[in-house]
Order: sequence, then structure tokens, then C-alpha cells
Amino acid sequence: MSAPGLTLAGIFPPVTTPFARDESVDFDSLAANLKKYNATKLAGYVILGSTGESVYLRDEEKLKILEAAREAAAPEKILIAGTGAEATAETIELTRRAATLGYRAALVRTPAYFKPQMTEQALERHFLDVAEASPIPLLVYSVPQFTGVAVEAGLAARLGRHPNIVGIKESSGNVGRVAQMVHLSPPGFQVLVGSATTLLPSLAVGVTGAILAVACVLPELCTELYEAYGQGQYARARALQRKLLEPTVAVTSLFGVAGLKFAMDFRGYAGGWPRRPLRPLDEAAKAELLRIFRAFDPSN
Amino acid sequence: MSAPGLTLAGIFPPVTTPFARDESVDFDSLAANLKKYNATKLAGYVILGSTGESVYLRDEEKLKILEAAREAAAPEKILIAGTGAEATAETIELTRRAATLGYRAALVRTPAYFKPQMTEQALERHFLDVAEASPIPLLVYSVPQFTGVAVEAGLAARLGRHPNIVGIKESSGNVGRVAQMVHLSPPGFQVLVGSATTLLPSLAVGVTGAILAVACVLPELCTELYEAYGQGQYARARALQRKLLEPTVAVTSLFGVAGLKFAMDFRGYAGGWPRRPLRPLDEAAKAELLRIFRAFDPSN
Amino acid sequence: MSAPGLTLAGIFPPVTTPFARDESVDFDSLAANLKKYNATKLAGYVILGSTGESVYLRDEEKLKILEAAREAAAPEKILIAGTGAEATAETIELTRRAATLGYRAALVRTPAYFKPQMTEQALERHFLDVAEASPIPLLVYSVPQFTGVAVEAGLAARLGRHPNIVGIKESSGNVGRVAQMVHLSPPGFQVLVGSATTLLPSLAVGVTGAILAVACVLPELCTELYEAYGQGQYARARALQRKLLEPTVAVTSLFGVAGLKFAMDFRGYAGGWPRRPLRPLDEAAKAELLRIFRAFDPSN
Amino acid sequence: MSAPGLTLAGIFPPVTTPFARDESVDFDSLAANLKKYNATKLAGYVILGSTGESVYLRDEEKLKILEAAREAAAPEKILIAGTGAEATAETIELTRRAATLGYRAALVRTPAYFKPQMTEQALERHFLDVAEASPIPLLVYSVPQFTGVAVEAGLAARLGRHPNIVGIKESSGNVGRVAQMVHLSPPGFQVLVGSATTLLPSLAVGVTGAILAVACVLPELCTELYEAYGQGQYARARALQRKLLEPTVAVTSLFGVAGLKFAMDFRGYAGGWPRRPLRPLDEAAKAELLRIFRAFDPSN
Repeated sequence: MSAPGLTLAGIFPPVTTPFARDESVDFDSLAANLKKYNATKLAGYVILGSTGESVYLRDEEKLKILEAAREAAAPEKILIAGTGAEATAETIELTRRAATLGYRAALVRTPAYFKPQMTEQALERHFLDVAEASPIPLLVYSVPQFTGVAVEAGLAARLGRHPNIVGIKESSGNVGRVAQMVHLSPPGFQVLVGSATTLLPSLAVGVTGAILAVACVLPELCTELYEAYGQGQYARARALQRKLLEPTVAVTSLFGVAGLKFAMDFRGYAGGWPRRPLRPLDEAAKAELLRIFRAFDPSN
Repeated sequence: MSAPGLTLAGIFPPVTTPFARDESVDFDSLAANLKKYNATKLAGYVILGSTGESVYLRDEEKLKILEAAREAAAPEKILIAGTGAEATAETIELTRRAATLGYRAALVRTPAYFKPQMTEQALERHFLDVAEASPIPLLVYSVPQFTGVAVEAGLAARLGRHPNIVGIKESSGNVGRVAQMVHLSPPGFQVLVGSATTLLPSLAVGVTGAILAVACVLPELCTELYEAYGQGQYARARALQRKLLEPTVAVTSLFGVAGLKFAMDFRGYAGGWPRRPLRPLDEAAKAELLRIFRAFDPSN
Repeated sequence: MSAPGLTLAGIFPPVTTPFARDESVDFDSLAANLKKYNATKLAGYVILGSTGESVYLRDEEKLKILEAAREAAAPEKILIAGTGAEATAETIELTRRAATLGYRAALVRTPAYFKPQMTEQALERHFLDVAEASPIPLLVYSVPQFTGVAVEAGLAARLGRHPNIVGIKESSGNVGRVAQMVHLSPPGFQVLVGSATTLLPSLAVGVTGAILAVACVLPELCTELYEAYGQGQYARARALQRKLLEPTVAVTSLFGVAGLKFAMDFRGYAGGWPRRPLRPLDEAAKAELLRIFRAFDPSN
Repeated sequence: MSAPGLTLAGIFPPVTTPFARDESVDFDSLAANLKKYNATKLAGYVILGSTGESVYLRDEEKLKILEAAREAAAPEKILIAGTGAEATAETIELTRRAATLGYRAALVRTPAYFKPQMTEQALERHFLDVAEASPIPLLVYSVPQFTGVAVEAGLAARLGRHPNIVGIKESSGNVGRVAQMVHLSPPGFQVLVGSATTLLPSLAVGVTGAILAVACVLPELCTELYEAYGQGQYARARALQRKLLEPTVAVTSLFGVAGLKFAMDFRGYAGGWPRRPLRPLDEAAKAELLRIFRAFDPSN
């Protein structure tokens, strides 16, 4: 059941889901974005991640999006499907569907609703149940800023002993925790960071790659930083990291998915509308984003 | 579009969803429980609330449960459907279905995933959008211990101005906030408390009723306390409140839904299994629950 | 070493420390305030509580303030000294000094600096060490909104078994926790609430009294509510509780000690300046406070 | 009033305060430790930092410790005094005393007691007031894990414009925030990290040095890592960082100052007792610390 050789190195964008004004999925725009990304050095794509607004999608939409993305993605790009749901059985079902559709790995978010009961023991059992039932390897997904539930380094290390759990996406941006995960986990367990403001320091403590919302709009800047670090060009890596700080904050904590989509529209991708309850940006937010992203000309 | 006269006074249980060992919904047990509740002084039922494990249910299951509950409920019991989803449109759709099935009101949870974007403004817009589209009145649902998002008194008061928003279920147990809601909201806006450990103090600051998990297993004790308060028997109300403390903690924060279901089995209701990732209780938890609930003989 | 008969019922203000413009203690104003309070139904005074800005006072100032307050207080008023410091030995020393100066009880705040080490066990040992060494009974002081450390009901109950620990001031405003404390603690252990927004609901679950910042500026309103509850006039108590909500929020969480002092100046007490780093109010804050406190004419 | 040329690069231990069994300060042990540190590559010493248990010290003790440390420190070591108190005026007074005693800089903790009033504006005013009055440059100290109050990057940048504020000790371990501080602050503003688990990643984003509790017991390991990074030996730096993880956690969040002192005793320094309310370690904690620190032989 294991997946020897699935290497999750490099930069992956958590691909956005373009919506039309009426909130319906705009599949053409999705395909258009992926075709542009195909020409970059991105290692692959996460479809139905948080940034893909997966919590706002119905089951039938999810399957169609997974299919459409697979069609549009270049064959060398690694495809990862976000399949986490609150219920274990529902997560297993969607994971199996993703495997059938050709996805190479599943990104499985921590269940989080009944927080007092989401103990380390319950989370461990959930991930092991899904890992046992899944035809494809799992990437655990810890995103406490959205869920209120964090996977700590000790639990990540224990999960890493299961042959079908190949790594974790750690999105808290807590580099100390990331360092502990790298340190405590079995060899081959791959820690990917989910926070672009800490990409370079996370590489410095041993992560193998990153899944970054800002890579949806500035893919080249992210892959350049990754390459610079890999080639030992630390001064250049640090300069690129600094360049990433402001746009990253703008398209994540500050303006969120709506901000990311607006910036994508500005930079030639198809951003589109967010789904409600996310709101379109007000004029001040748009002006701020234009100020930031004007600095990134097409040659970036 | 308003619903003059919908009074949400008294005690409502957030009805549990019984599952068989294979995690399928056990509709017979659901009906059996409701028939027992029909013989009590409970004011009505919340179907598909948090305690109903609604986050673990698929859409088709939700509709069948709403139907089954409506069939089993006595006609004088007020039926409230939990219809909140992360997406506004999905919430509207389920709310309309619930209305079609005869539900009198919809309990709508705060969306909570993209926390930095779930501002008061975004939450307000969400509830107003749902209220505009819903054929039945809404009860706003704030349960920060699960969602990490709280409706504060000022927002509740603003929402209360919409004719189709008739009240709020406040489950944080923060009595100061509850008092502020009662104080600031327009006349007729009904504040229901979702925490049995603070039932009496919440009545003392003016709530009209309560939606209480512990009412699934000790309905008589809850309605007795409510009546004692209403009849000015404060000493008796205080004694009953004390009696409620330990069982309430046991079936909520301490052992959660699995604990509630175990206690229900013990007291002659059909508890059944929780759905994964919730786990069955270990032996120590069961022993503790038996110790607590043995004190509540059938005459309670 | 026990203090049989020390009853802490009724309303106590945590007396403010008036400062001159140059931040020196204004002892005359302190005495003047206490003389006005002497004419009210306040049960006694807490000197050097949080609202007394005790964290901004030097040791020599503290002793002088304790002396000055004792001189000005009417003999029937119960005097409680805030003597908590981070270090156990320092707390013991100040507690002994307070006893020598004639104080009837000591209010001892949780130490809070090294939070990961401030376990229940460490807190318990601290309070027991102080209780053993103190000639006067202790009131435990839990104020997590300032310290980040809360005394839970179980710890309060264990501390209540020591003959020299007579009660707790619970300032979180968490009425569920207050109810648990009343329920679990030994008979005679006195729970006082430190939050005026939850005074009535806290009385409803059995607290014996309250230590309230707002009582520094509206003592009569607080004692009226306390009496109304005690005489079974619940409707009146509820109306008075509502009246308390807005001024309480204004002089605590909203504008803090500077707001309280400004309101005191307006109502004929000597408020004076706060000590830095607290800042004087801006004009908008002053206008808001005037709007609120104009509603409270002298006959209140 | 500025201090051109005060460079705070390299590793500084926040020197512990050794206490005898009766909790009195053991000045001989303090001097003995500093003499050992004099032989290392440590850049200087922080006296009266958090790890020095400064919150448990009386004023007269603080001055004697500052004097004793100055006597024992080698002349080339930079001396920094922790002078932060809750009150602005008290902080100024201690800062002036430290300057008179020959200290080169003052480490000033955020006041934190009245949290709702400790706004960015109030914190800014506090630090500017101290900076104006101080004869020596300030290092702002943000340690939210103890105080519950954090200095964010924007405030740090604004404070950095004052000529007498030369940098910040950022102890939250939030590397993203550290990176933002480096990025936003004026040239020459020195960010020092206060968390050894994130030393390497913090260096990677541009901090100039670090103030590390673990440097009290493993000074050589910390300075080696710092040097390795400075010399571009990144693989060695990463290996050293991994070696630091477990001992760092043990002497900070896990066992705190008592754990650090026990480890110091084991490694030939004078640890001694912590002051109450800190408790001596139990046997299990001691065994765990011995297991960890046995791996660090004297040649480290």
C-alpha cells in the first residue's frame, strides 16, 4: 500500500477555484490558469485545498473540478487532491474518488468541529483510518489558523511511521514546530510548509517543499526562491524572501482569497469572484493590492 | 416575510442522530427517542444541530432525518432545523428544504473557516442574505467553542432588526454577553442559551429558553428548572441548577456526544454509536458516566 | 489560625489610588473618597486591588496607602488588602504588614509570569504557603483577563479546605465557573464575583458578595441591586442589573482605570490621573463617558 | 542621546540568579558563573532578564545583582540590564541606575497588566518615554508567552526610528514576525531572537544575534551555531540547530528556570534553587534532564 518514490519537493500552489458572478464554477478559467502554470517550474498542483474554497463546494462540484484540473495539468506536474472532510468515512470516500481520477496524493485536513474531543488520539485514529483505506498516499494537513486544531511534532512523527502517510503540510508558520517535525519524523517523511512568509527559514530547517497561496499569483518568485536556496545562493534567497513578504500577507491574512483572486486578475490569471460568505473587496483594498502588485512586472 | 408569533420559549433538545455500528443512520431509534420526548414538557426539537453531528452528515441523510423527525414529533412541538453550512448559498438551499418539510425555524451557524475574513460585516451580510431568502424565520447560532467565531451582542442586536431573524442561540456560556444581547436587542428578539451550566443565571438575565444537549438525556430535570424559575421558585431552581452541573459537563466538554449517547442508552433512550472521528468511550469514561447518571432515577 | 466568622457579604469597591498630575499619590483625595463611601451601604473596601493600580506602586507607597485607608475608613467597614506579588516570599511579607496595620483579610492574586510553570500544583502550593504564614485569612484572586492565569473550580475547592483561605474573588465573569466553585467548595467558602456585568446571575448561583470597580463610582446602584436580590425583588434586581451594564463596560474593558477615574471626577469623587503606562483619556472617550454617566443623577 | 556603534551581535545568555536554599541571592555563585562565561565566545550578558527571575527580585536585590555582575564580567563583554517594570516611572528609575552602574543597554519588557489598555499607542508612548529619559540605549523586549502582550512588526519599526532605541528582543519564536521586523525596521535596528529553537531560521531572515536561556548551560553550542552560520557553513549550522532542539525545550517551556538551573548544576555551573512560586523539580523531571544533558560532554 505504500508509495515509494513519491517525492513532494518544490513549490505547489493550492489552486483557486474561479467562480462566475453567479457563484457557479468557471471551468474554463480553471483550465486556463493551469495551462499558464504548466509553463512554470511549479512542481505540481493542490486541487481543492483551503485556497480552492473547498469548504464552499458541493460534492458533485468537487469531482468535476478534480477532473477538469487533471485534464488541464501537464503530465509532469504532481497532482494532489484536498479530500479532507469532518467525517472520517466521507474523507475516505472522496480520497478514493481522487485516486480513481488519477491523483497522486491526498491532502487531508484535521477534523476540527468538536474541539474538546479532537485529542491527539482521535486525530491519530482518523488519519490512520484514512491511510489504511486510501489507494494513494496521504499528506496530513494542519492549518490551525482556520481550524483551531494543530498537529504537533510528536503526532506528526507517529503518523509518519505509517507507510501510506508520506508527509505533512504545516500551515501555521510556526518554524520551531516545523523544525521539530523535521527532527522527530522518520527518514523520508516530507514536511511541506504552508506559509510563504516563512519559506526560507523553513527551508533552512529542512522542509522539502511548500504549498503556498501566493504561488497562485507569483509562481516564478516562489520557484526562484526555492531554487536559489537549493543552489546555495543564500543572499539571493534572502532578498527574494523579503520580496515575498508584503504580497504574501496581502493575499492571505489581510485580504484572503478575495484578495488573491483580485491580484490574479491583475497579473493575467483568471481570479474571478469568491463564493459567499467571502465578500468582494472594497475599493481601499483593491487600491492597496494594486500598489503592491504593480511592483511585480511580468518578468518576475 | 416575518413570522409574528413564533415564540421560542422553554427547553429544546438538540436531538442526537443515532447511528448503527456501521455508522449508518438508525431512523427507528431516532423516531423512538422523539416519541419519548413527546411525552415530556419539552417545547420542541432542534434537528441537525451540533449535537446531532450534522457536520458528519451528507446532504441526502440530512433531508431524510428532517423528514423522519417531523413524522415522529408530536404536532405541538416546535420543529427547528439546523441548516448552517460554510457557504451562504448552500445554507439557503438547505433552509428552503427544511421549510418545505414543515420546519418552523432554521438554526444557522456562523460560517467560520476563513477566520480573518469572518468579520462582523461578513457575518452580518451572510445572515441577512439567508434571512432574505428563507421562507421561515432564522435563529442565529453562535458556538465559539466549536467554530472559533463568536457573535457579539452588538451584531446580534443589529441582526435582530431584520423581521425574519427572531433570535439567537448563544452557546458560549458567557452570561455577561448573554445579558448584553438581551439588553441591546430589539423587543421580541429571543435569546436562547445553549449551555446548561448557566441555565438559571441566563434566565435571571432574561433569556426566553434554552437548547441544551443534556436535555436529550435529562429532559425532565431541564423543564423542571425552567418551570421552577418561571413560577418564582428560586430556591428550588437553584437546587435543580446544581443538580444539572455534573451531568452537563459530563455529556458536553468532558465526554462530548459519545458520552451523551452512552448516558442516553443507560437512561432508556437510543444513544448508539458516534460517527468517526468521534471515538467510542473507554471503560474509565463509561464508569464515570454510570456513577453520575445512576443518581438520576426514572422519577427525575 | 482560622478566622471564624469573617463574612464577606455585600459589595466592596476595589478602591482607586488617586494620583496628582506628577504621578505622586494624593493621600487627601484617597481619604476624601473613603469618607464618602463610609456613608453608603458598601460592606468594606479592597485597598491595593487591580483597580488601585497596585502593579504600579512601590512598596513604601503601598504601606502608606494601607495606613491612610485604614485611618479614613469607618470602623464598621471590612478592610481587605491586596497583597499579591509574583514571588511567594514577597507576598507573605506584604500580607504580614497588612495584618499589622489592621486589615481583616488579604486578597492574593495568582502569580502569573512563567505561565507554563504556573500549574495547578504550583498555584496550590503558593496559596498554601501564604495561607500558612499569614496572620489574617486569604481571599484567592483569579483575574485571567489581566494575568492570563485562571483558578478553576477544582483548585478553588481544594484551597477552600485550608482554614485560613476563606474565599475567592472570581473576576473572569465566567458564571458557569462561578457556579461550579459554589457547588464544589466546602461549606462556608465564600465566592465573590469581580464582574458587575454578571452580578445578578452570579448571585443567582450563590455568590455571597462582589468586588466591583464600578462600585467606586456608582456604589449606591451596586448595593441597591445586592439588596433587591436579597429581599427577593427579582424584577427590580433585573432592572438594576440592566442599568449597570453600560457604565460597567465603560469603566472596565472599554476605558479602564482612566475611564473609571474620569467618571469618578464627574460624580463628585476624586478620580485624578492614572499612572503611566496608562494614558489619560482622549476627548471622544470623555464625551462617551459623560453621555453614559449623565444618566446617573446624584439620587442614585 | 543616541548610541552610535552599539552592536548587539552574537549570543547573550539571560543570566540566571542563583539562590541559596533559603531563597537569598547567592552572589558568589553568580560571580563564578560569569567567570566561566568570560572564557567563552558569548558576546555579553543580560542581567535581570526573565530567566534571571527578575519578577521575583526586590529593588535592592536588583541593584546588588547588577553591581556584582558588572564586577565579575570581563571588560569586553557587553552588559545589558533588564529594567522593565509595569510602571513607566519605575522603569525609568531602574534604567538610570543601570546606566550609572556601567550597563551599556537596557532591556525593557512590555508592560502588560491592564491588557485591554495596552494598545499599540500606549506601548509606543511607554517605550518613547523611557527612551527619552534613559542615558543608555534601549532594547525593546517582547515575550508574549509570559506577558500576553506582543510587539508587532509595525510597532517595532516605528520604535526603531527613535535614536535611543537600538533594537528588540523578540522571544515569541514567530519567525514570520521576526522576518517582518527585519524587513520593516530602519537600517541599523537590531533584531535579536529570544528562542533557541528558531535560532538558525531567524539568522536566515536577518537577526543580528540572540538572547537564549539555553546559552546559560550550553554556551559553546550556541556560539558555534552562530559562527557556523556566519561563516557560511550551513550544513553544520543545521546539524547544530538540531542538537539544540531537545535541550532548549527542556530548559524553557517544559521545565522552565528550575530545569535550566538543574542542568547548569549538572554541567558545572552554579544553578541553585529557583524562587517560589517556582518549585524544585520532581525526580522524573530530573531523570529526563540527565538523559538529555548527558549527551553534551564537556568538549561541546
